[in-house]
Amino acid sequence: MALITAPTPLATLAERYDQVRAFTRRLAAPLAIEDYVIQTMEDVSPTKWHLAHTTWFFETFVLSPHLEGYRPCHPQYAYLFNSYYIQAGERHCRDRRGYLSRPTVEEVYAYRTYVDEHMQVLLNHPDEALQAVIAPLVEIGLHHEQQHQELLVTDIKHVLSVNPLRPVYRADLTALGTPEEAPPLAWLSLAEGTYTVGHEGSGFHYDNEAPRHTRYLHEAQIASRLVTNAEYLAFMADGGYQRPELWLSAGWATVQERGWTEPFYWERHDDGWQLFTMGGLQPVPLHAPVCHLSYFEADAYARWAGMRLPTEGEWEVAMHLHGPEVSTATEANMVEHDALQPVPLMAAPSGRLHQGYGDVWEWTRSQYDPYPGYAPAPGALGEYNGKFMCNQFVLRGGSCATSYTHIRPTYRNFFPPDSCWQFTGLRLARDV
Amino acid sequence: MALITAPTPLATLAERYDQVRAFTRRLAAPLAIEDYVIQTMEDVSPTKWHLAHTTWFFETFVLSPHLEGYRPCHPQYAYLFNSYYIQAGERHCRDRRGYLSRPTVEEVYAYRTYVDEHMQVLLNHPDEALQAVIAPLVEIGLHHEQQHQELLVTDIKHVLSVNPLRPVYRADLTALGTPEEAPPLAWLSLAEGTYTVGHEGSGFHYDNEAPRHTRYLHEAQIASRLVTNAEYLAFMADGGYQRPELWLSAGWATVQERGWTEPFYWERHDDGWQLFTMGGLQPVPLHAPVCHLSYFEADAYARWAGMRLPTEGEWEVAMHLHGPEVSTATEANMVEHDALQPVPLMAAPSGRLHQGYGDVWEWTRSQYDPYPGYAPAPGALGEYNGKFMCNQFVLRGGSCATSYTHIRPTYRNFFPPDSCWQFTGLRLARDV
Amino acid sequence: MALITAPTPLATLAERYDQVRAFTRRLAAPLAIEDYVIQTMEDVSPTKWHLAHTTWFFETFVLSPHLEGYRPCHPQYAYLFNSYYIQAGERHCRDRRGYLSRPTVEEVYAYRTYVDEHMQVLLNHPDEALQAVIAPLVEIGLHHEQQHQELLVTDIKHVLSVNPLRPVYRADLTALGTPEEAPPLAWLSLAEGTYTVGHEGSGFHYDNEAPRHTRYLHEAQIASRLVTNAEYLAFMADGGYQRPELWLSAGWATVQERGWTEPFYWERHDDGWQLFTMGGLQPVPLHAPVCHLSYFEADAYARWAGMRLPTEGEWEVAMHLHGPEVSTATEANMVEHDALQPVPLMAAPSGRLHQGYGDVWEWTRSQYDPYPGYAPAPGALGEYNGKFMCNQFVLRGGSCATSYTHIRPTYRNFFPPDSCWQFTGLRLARDV
Amino acid sequence: MALITAPTPLATLAERYDQVRAFTRRLAAPLAIEDYVIQTMEDVSPTKWHLAHTTWFFETFVLSPHLEGYRPCHPQYAYLFNSYYIQAGERHCRDRRGYLSRPTVEEVYAYRTYVDEHMQVLLNHPDEALQAVIAPLVEIGLHHEQQHQELLVTDIKHVLSVNPLRPVYRADLTALGTPEEAPPLAWLSLAEGTYTVGHEGSGFHYDNEAPRHTRYLHEAQIASRLVTNAEYLAFMADGGYQRPELWLSAGWATVQERGWTEPFYWERHDDGWQLFTMGGLQPVPLHAPVCHLSYFEADAYARWAGMRLPTEGEWEVAMHLHGPEVSTATEANMVEHDALQPVPLMAAPSGRLHQGYGDVWEWTRSQYDPYPGYAPAPGALGEYNGKFMCNQFVLRGGSCATSYTHIRPTYRNFFPPDSCWQFTGLRLARDV
Repeated sequence: MALITAPTPLATLAERYDQVRAFTRRLAAPLAIEDYVIQTMEDVSPTKWHLAHTTWFFETFVLSPHLEGYRPCHPQYAYLFNSYYIQAGERHCRDRRGYLSRPTVEEVYAYRTYVDEHMQVLLNHPDEALQAVIAPLVEIGLHHEQQHQELLVTDIKHVLSVNPLRPVYRADLTALGTPEEAPPLAWLSLAEGTYTVGHEGSGFHYDNEAPRHTRYLHEAQIASRLVTNAEYLAFMADGGYQRPELWLSAGWATVQERGWTEPFYWERHDDGWQLFTMGGLQPVPLHAPVCHLSYFEADAYARWAGMRLPTEGEWEVAMHLHGPEVSTATEANMVEHDALQPVPLMAAPSGRLHQGYGDVWEWTRSQYDPYPGYAPAPGALGEYNGKFMCNQFVLRGGSCATSYTHIRPTYRNFFPPDSCWQFTGLRLARDV
Repeated sequence: MALITAPTPLATLAERYDQVRAFTRRLAAPLAIEDYVIQTMEDVSPTKWHLAHTTWFFETFVLSPHLEGYRPCHPQYAYLFNSYYIQAGERHCRDRRGYLSRPTVEEVYAYRTYVDEHMQVLLNHPDEALQAVIAPLVEIGLHHEQQHQELLVTDIKHVLSVNPLRPVYRADLTALGTPEEAPPLAWLSLAEGTYTVGHEGSGFHYDNEAPRHTRYLHEAQIASRLVTNAEYLAFMADGGYQRPELWLSAGWATVQERGWTEPFYWERHDDGWQLFTMGGLQPVPLHAPVCHLSYFEADAYARWAGMRLPTEGEWEVAMHLHGPEVSTATEANMVEHDALQPVPLMAAPSGRLHQGYGDVWEWTRSQYDPYPGYAPAPGALGEYNGKFMCNQFVLRGGSCATSYTHIRPTYRNFFPPDSCWQFTGLRLARDV
Repeated sequence: MALITAPTPLATLAERYDQVRAFTRRLAAPLAIEDYVIQTMEDVSPTKWHLAHTTWFFETFVLSPHLEGYRPCHPQYAYLFNSYYIQAGERHCRDRRGYLSRPTVEEVYAYRTYVDEHMQVLLNHPDEALQAVIAPLVEIGLHHEQQHQELLVTDIKHVLSVNPLRPVYRADLTALGTPEEAPPLAWLSLAEGTYTVGHEGSGFHYDNEAPRHTRYLHEAQIASRLVTNAEYLAFMADGGYQRPELWLSAGWATVQERGWTEPFYWERHDDGWQLFTMGGLQPVPLHAPVCHLSYFEADAYARWAGMRLPTEGEWEVAMHLHGPEVSTATEANMVEHDALQPVPLMAAPSGRLHQGYGDVWEWTRSQYDPYPGYAPAPGALGEYNGKFMCNQFVLRGGSCATSYTHIRPTYRNFFPPDSCWQFTGLRLARDV
Repeated sequence: MALITAPTPLATLAERYDQVRAFTRRLAAPLAIEDYVIQTMEDVSPTKWHLAHTTWFFETFVLSPHLEGYRPCHPQYAYLFNSYYIQAGERHCRDRRGYLSRPTVEEVYAYRTYVDEHMQVLLNHPDEALQAVIAPLVEIGLHHEQQHQELLVTDIKHVLSVNPLRPVYRADLTALGTPEEAPPLAWLSLAEGTYTVGHEGSGFHYDNEAPRHTRYLHEAQIASRLVTNAEYLAFMADGGYQRPELWLSAGWATVQERGWTEPFYWERHDDGWQLFTMGGLQPVPLHAPVCHLSYFEADAYARWAGMRLPTEGEWEVAMHLHGPEVSTATEANMVEHDALQPVPLMAAPSGRLHQGYGDVWEWTRSQYDPYPGYAPAPGALGEYNGKFMCNQFVLRGGSCATSYTHIRPTYRNFFPPDSCWQFTGLRLARDV
């Protein structure tokens, strides 16, 4: 497979539409038809569903209301490919997405083509008032598609992993570096005081990143880099999974119930720990960031280390003070880097926060809640974020499956504390 | 699709092997690749799995032990496609058959071809002693494959039915007759006394049909034909699903728990009851046999009618005394008739037992147990029957998805009392 | 506590009523109030509930319809203490019987007294026509109460057993004998031919024991005594719980799911196997009958031993040909023997079937079904038996918790194949 | 029953010990023995368990380590009555607390007496250094006991409520006032800026209330009083329980799954809504605070009203600026008021925050998390709070079942968002 490329940020909206949509196809290209269909746990959606659902989004929120005379591709796709948008009508049960052999993969691609052609008509329509109306909807649709690109990767990783034949997604992914050791972990300071956080300006962002507001932080320090597999192995060797005092109560119950003794996708082989990756099984790379941790595991590790996870406010301020520019995310290990797994940190200039973008989503200790003055977007699109503000923790920074055109320092991802099928890891913080 | 044909009973074993194996392919031919993959409830296996599992049977029990130098097609297929044969080794969980996107459908067909080619080598081997050893194994393998042909049909019916798009298996199935009314139900007598039941002679049969033995029957009568949809609708209209006194205790619990108010695959539409069939939705055919009943429903109907279900002994004796010859099963509505649903009884000469073969498997009131002197076959093949003798009821006669080369008057099918995804119905009996 | 005595069979009905009812109180007498209230698994009912439900039976089926001017003790007891009699009205959920702290134990005893006083009025009423009507209802009520006496014992055994304090029901129970070894197991023959089984004559019996009818048996042999703990230990030592080929498919699933490795109420201690009994923990008595086996275990043991369980027809005929008279049940280890656990067989004259009554209910291989010509009793009392004819196996002979006035050679007890909290064991049979 | 009185705050520790422990007995006094034993849902513990567990606390954390020669009352009570203190050793499963008929209630009271006598010895010991060590442990033990007093009340309410006989805890509880209408709801302002929150000084507090720290609030307003039943009925009448857009996603799933259509303990009768209270069923009092709401319901109500719940920071600051002194909690509707249900607000001087203490715990929108610089107490007592910081929301202010000696403005209670068996309600807030 040729090099994966991602959309150019400065292109026109019509060009960006094409780029993002084409990238989805490229992600699915290595799959067999059979891989598109199945659902191997409730969190996982079939690839076919991702392809159709993202298309449904444009059909429902852009074409149907704004392209005169538009007729939906199929009368029941609205029912089949809605996810949780209650105001957008009835929908097929999430846990039965794997029960749909039809429409076929070919039909789903035809659906994409149908919608794409109509979208190009609309995006090239000369009416500027219309363009002004649809532009923000298309923007959200493209970011929505990029979220599903990441899910497509993580979900297909699960689909392949449960198969005893251990199929490989691609054998030609970008290889890991193999440093002798990880750069030393340094501490970056945050002074006590008021800071401003949240999204600023007119660029695209989700409603949950706004409004920009003042927050009071207490003196703290944040680690210069992510926790590595080698460091996590020390926690395991010290009985990390056997010591209830290291865990949240709900975390310990989860460990017991599911019999967790190592991170997800790890396997103990005769010759040591192996890791299932998009490129197949491989030995656990000692100095790469530890990955596929649940919040419970990240939190237990931090407690074991005598530290804690950062709050999301601390993370955002630290990125502002010590981290890379978002424009440098192109250099980070994001989906365009084509590794599809976290890679070891090679060079690490001191005094800076490294790996802030890409590699792994970083768990914060912040439970996902509304910012002061938060107001959800109106209509069905307002269901996007606010209604999940319960039993979720915020993650920051994007992963090796996130596009650099999709990440921002204010971006708030969120998952329940027992989730571990995403590329998720941690960075330490401590009080002073 | 051209006419479906089934194997000729008198062909050589090698010819019959080809015929049965080819028939499986023909049954799967109308499907899209996606249809082969999914598992829509635990009882249902993916078509792909049926294709591979029946092939595994020949590989495991015939080729590996008896074809010199045979090398299994793939080292892990033995693990993936074993079903419940514990003595044949470890196996993949039944409820995760739908989690296997690989091997692909193409690879599974290649597996079939690989095994078929080796089987032909073996079946044409000149060593007569070898032929004598493998012939009974191949026989059981072919009957095993025919059982899975029936399951393939019933399982794919379920797969298509849960899809809101309501795909059709084939649009050109043999049409139902449409009589004005069902022939009148007559009663055939069974005199009290001793009878002999069970399989006789050297023909193929399963271990559970033997030994042939004496049984004492009491005076009874058995109905000349199956219960029809029109008759079952009268039960429904009389509150059949709302009256606990008509049901077994476990049956009533099932009715409440699953909210049953009509037979499986029935749907109430504005213009009346519709039925999901292999040819799509159609109005319930009033004079066709009622189908997809659980034992609980068949038993409740019989109680409501003031009668009972026959015992399997009564059924077998009645077929012997009043029923058709098994050689006439070619004229019955079996899979070769290519209707894939029960059809109305048209002509019904009096004094005879009609619909004994085909249309629907007939629930008997007999719980599945060992015949006196029963001994399971030795080795892994002995796991075939005896170990299911608990919480199963016996069904007799074959259905519209059974081959006429597979049925016998002594054939004992069995399912748990809440099963209804098979083509199952009932015939009444009564004490005198 | 003084010697437990049971009702005299020849007493008047009023006397027998008093005797049976008093015996229930005597069984509950050793308990603390707290023991009466709780429900430690769904099969278990609180002692308080048994006391009230048996009383409700007389109130509902005898007093309310037949004692002029009778007013129920409390308007809601009919709702609270109905069990499964659907025709007797709505009822409180079985799995919530342990959620009822009221009525208090004192109030329940007052309910018993209230009903007993009215019953004595009715039983001493001079109207002979009335007596003729109520006598069979009172009979069934007394046998119903005796069934609940047995359940009261087995349920309270469970209640005490789950308590880490291991309370003792009574410390002064009749002690076991301690023979050097069990008498040798001999085989008693059954010749092939027709036999008559089922209840005969006018004595009390349940509807499921009738009608008396002809049955054809094949040549077989049945063991002269029950299987002992020592024999069962040999099965365990031979990997009985680890070998799937010894088990029914559903049995093996149960073994895996519940982690069974020994009989219920057994515990492995440092110094060997201990058994929880009504008299507390004690070492497993080697030559006493093995007890608290599920059907699955009894069946697996028999298969391991190269034999099988008897059918219920074989058991009944063997008792008739080789067993003790039912009048000798007074000498058997039944509830009046006051051991409340199976005891070793001491003397065992050859050529006879021993332990046919008492000690343990004997699992037969017969699934519980209706006899030919079976008709349930009319009305709510007809719900007593027939509606459980699904997924139950028949047990015969009574146990150490059954009264000798309650057992008959035709008595058919039944439980699901995974039940093991009753006093249940096995006797072997074999084909010839 | 005589007037309930609570401990005097200024008494000596030994006196306070007696007062608090005696108050527990007084709360249990109206119960029948049977009421002490059962567990009617997992959240509910038997009264007997509360009595023993609070006693175990003093035995384990005070007597065993600090009273020379102390011997535990019973060797297994430590196992039976530990709750979740993992570092204090193994413990009996929470969901099986209702399976313990022993120790009896009488034995549990003897346990209390045994521990109380030893505690008085210790509390009157002349060694001042010892007193300095045990005083904080006794303090936490007394507050722990007060928490369980509240749980005892809410748990016994549940125990009585599920009984179809609808027993009454006490018939002589303090009656509600019956105002014509609720005082008008006014809005109290919070200016933007930094505030200090958290516990200050040396008084008793839990570790989760510390450290005192700076927090930045945005301009907002908070309601002067609680939401009433009449107001909540308007939400219900407007389809509140049928409109998914009003609910958090997890909340809507809960509504669907449990079939919620009104608050817990409400029942629709022919003559209107009834409420189950400690004094029995009564009509819903229109102007009393709505109670037994889950977080999901409180949040949905606020969204329906176009407002939101306050954060815990806002609540604490508002109490400081506009609320009553904590010393006036004696006048609030707390457990000493002996109503055991929320009562209508009668007089309501303007410009003040009313009902801040007592009546109902007020749900805040704040998920329960550690304060900046939070450090759990060392040892097993440190398991008290921090390990529950996941999927819990903070509640403030105490309820009608809380003692006025137990509440503080900084007190942080917490429950999962679906909990509703506590006395929980809400106060509105809004952005400006």
